[in-house]
Amino acid sequence: MKDLSSYAALYAGSLMDDVLPFWLKNSPDKEYGGYFTCLDREGRVFDTDKFVWLQARQVWTFSMLWNQLEKKQEWLDCALHGARFLEKSGRDAKGDWYFSLTREGKPIVQPYNIFSDCFATMAFAQLYKATNDKGYCDIAADTFHRILTRAENPKGQYSKAFPGTRPLRSFSLPMILSNLVLEIEHILEPRLVEQTIAGGISTVMDTFYQPASGLILESVNPDGSFSDTFEGRLVNPGHVLEAMWFMMDLAERRNDMALISKALEISFNALEYGWDKEHGGIFYFLDIKGHPPQQLEWDQKLWWVHAEAIVCMLKGYRHTGDARCLYWFERLHDYTWERFRDAEKGEWFGYLNRQGEVLLPLKGGKWKGCFHVPRALYQGWKTLELILEKEDRSIKAY
Amino acid sequence: MKDLSSYAALYAGSLMDDVLPFWLKNSPDKEYGGYFTCLDREGRVFDTDKFVWLQARQVWTFSMLWNQLEKKQEWLDCALHGARFLEKSGRDAKGDWYFSLTREGKPIVQPYNIFSDCFATMAFAQLYKATNDKGYCDIAADTFHRILTRAENPKGQYSKAFPGTRPLRSFSLPMILSNLVLEIEHILEPRLVEQTIAGGISTVMDTFYQPASGLILESVNPDGSFSDTFEGRLVNPGHVLEAMWFMMDLAERRNDMALISKALEISFNALEYGWDKEHGGIFYFLDIKGHPPQQLEWDQKLWWVHAEAIVCMLKGYRHTGDARCLYWFERLHDYTWERFRDAEKGEWFGYLNRQGEVLLPLKGGKWKGCFHVPRALYQGWKTLELILEKEDRSIKAY
Repeated sequence: MKDLSSYAALYAGSLMDDVLPFWLKNSPDKEYGGYFTCLDREGRVFDTDKFVWLQARQVWTFSMLWNQLEKKQEWLDCALHGARFLEKSGRDAKGDWYFSLTREGKPIVQPYNIFSDCFATMAFAQLYKATNDKGYCDIAADTFHRILTRAENPKGQYSKAFPGTRPLRSFSLPMILSNLVLEIEHILEPRLVEQTIAGGISTVMDTFYQPASGLILESVNPDGSFSDTFEGRLVNPGHVLEAMWFMMDLAERRNDMALISKALEISFNALEYGWDKEHGGIFYFLDIKGHPPQQLEWDQKLWWVHAEAIVCMLKGYRHTGDARCLYWFERLHDYTWERFRDAEKGEWFGYLNRQGEVLLPLKGGKWKGCFHVPRALYQGWKTLELILEKEDRSIKAY
Repeated sequence: MKDLSSYAALYAGSLMDDVLPFWLKNSPDKEYGGYFTCLDREGRVFDTDKFVWLQARQVWTFSMLWNQLEKKQEWLDCALHGARFLEKSGRDAKGDWYFSLTREGKPIVQPYNIFSDCFATMAFAQLYKATNDKGYCDIAADTFHRILTRAENPKGQYSKAFPGTRPLRSFSLPMILSNLVLEIEHILEPRLVEQTIAGGISTVMDTFYQPASGLILESVNPDGSFSDTFEGRLVNPGHVLEAMWFMMDLAERRNDMALISKALEISFNALEYGWDKEHGGIFYFLDIKGHPPQQLEWDQKLWWVHAEAIVCMLKGYRHTGDARCLYWFERLHDYTWERFRDAEKGEWFGYLNRQGEVLLPLKGGKWKGCFHVPRALYQGWKTLELILEKEDRSIKAY
């Protein structure tokens, strides 16, 4: 294994010299505002539709980097460029965020997907932190309050579930809210922050966690029990790994080592369970009983799953020093660097087949934008620095 | 190439001795009625949800075989078994068909999908033909009239498209109606039959057919022009091939050889375009401009695509004697028999990866039931018999 400082340098260099320049160069739509995200291997635009998830996530990425890393004017300009487009065209009359827009900003797909709102909240809260512009604070706060009112029935009229027959709870929203609450702490009442954190931890670690398998399921009965249905049997190992580093962040804030340990054990379970022993990489979806899942893409290897797994292992190592974290980190890093990273044309491929070959030669699309890769590189870099500082302190203390 | 009579025997034997016994043995739910369709490689039930598409399609298959092939009591009993379940639990108060039901018949997913209604219409119209029970005729006729009233906006409240921004027309419904109209001719006013046929042919062959590529697209602008969007660039070669044999059936009824020729040329285009030159088999989805499609399953090989392609080539050969039909038929047959057919455990696998390996070891699921395989074997067998008779007559005449 390379020493950790060389990984820190690699992640920093990859973020600053490859990934951020790729998006700064290729994504801004200078004519209509916002960002192109459907970019081919070389970064050329192959479709001009604008997906609100990805518009908001890119505003967040550049605002966050301005806030956390460096006051680079082109980063703030890039964030503002997307924010102006979203502010002008992103919402309906009720303040709910559309799912997608034309290049010009006309709505294509209605606000059926509450994660558009979650990512808009993140984006405008970070931008408020960057600019101190109260208007952005209001957008974030208004959107967050709409999310809370919609949380029980997020799809509203677009929900195809017949009421009452199978009232499953879905993991995605509590998981995302557990991250969002720390993102927007500076604009919320402290009591609401504490309440949301406590609720998030309990929902993720008690309701969705299944002691029998040591895993977290995508959908459970309202009381947290197992539902032996397609939805109830579904495991998304990448979701589990991403959620577990969200839990570690909450645990760090509360100084709760027991929660960190539990989150890390669940992460190891997800990696053991989700790792493809034949071809390497983490499966996208699995059925907990080993039945065929409905998702035809179940065996594919997705960039975000591996990016989030890397962050999870580094945070786990930083908090616990558990050697298993380094074992998995190295395995994940090698797979990712060899398969997802495009050393020739920059940035990462998003979708590999089970064998680890490129399935779609794109750098961005409907779901992949400027988010998981830069966030993971940033989080990885900074977490490695904290680990190195700690080791350095230990050496000095010794 | 084997002689055609041996293929006829193979298809007949496969239908009668393998496929129908597989479903008769494994699918009926003797306790709650209807059929299990989620069957593993051995035919064991792995999930008990009931999908209205597949319930109706199985009622249709056994009714059709009773009507067309042989008065086997167990076939009619099997059809009636599913029909009773559908009649009791399949519809909402307006008469629209739910998408899925629990094992006991409680609705899970609302009637958002008009193809549930299309297949229910087919099922009950065939069952009426089999039983002369006027109640079944009424269900079919009522459902068909609901389809016509819903055709302009089939998803109703569940449509997530923002009205007006991108008013694309979708190929699926006109395609299915072109087949449905012949299925239910015996319960419709003759004028409505002729009108629906003429409309179907014109929509498929004028509006959706694109002279520039010689292909049919899944979505077009209202005037039939190309929409350079993810939806507009999408080609589903299996859809094209299935639709082209529907067109040949309509052309046969009208004695329209020009339509048969045109449908057959489009079929060859779809095969040339859709065939995977590297691994064999027909791709599931392609982007007409060669961009990455949104469908992650784009490169997979699906059973129904290949079953429908076989039927298309045999019908084409029967009508035209074009040698290209035999070339493609043999190629498709060999791929299908080697890859999809499970010589060891019976019936066909549904989903292969690009390399032609089994992706999901199931015989039935949410979308695969007792329909495409038996219909293709029946259509293939009977079409081969017609070809052989014609050749026999030619030889005698000579």
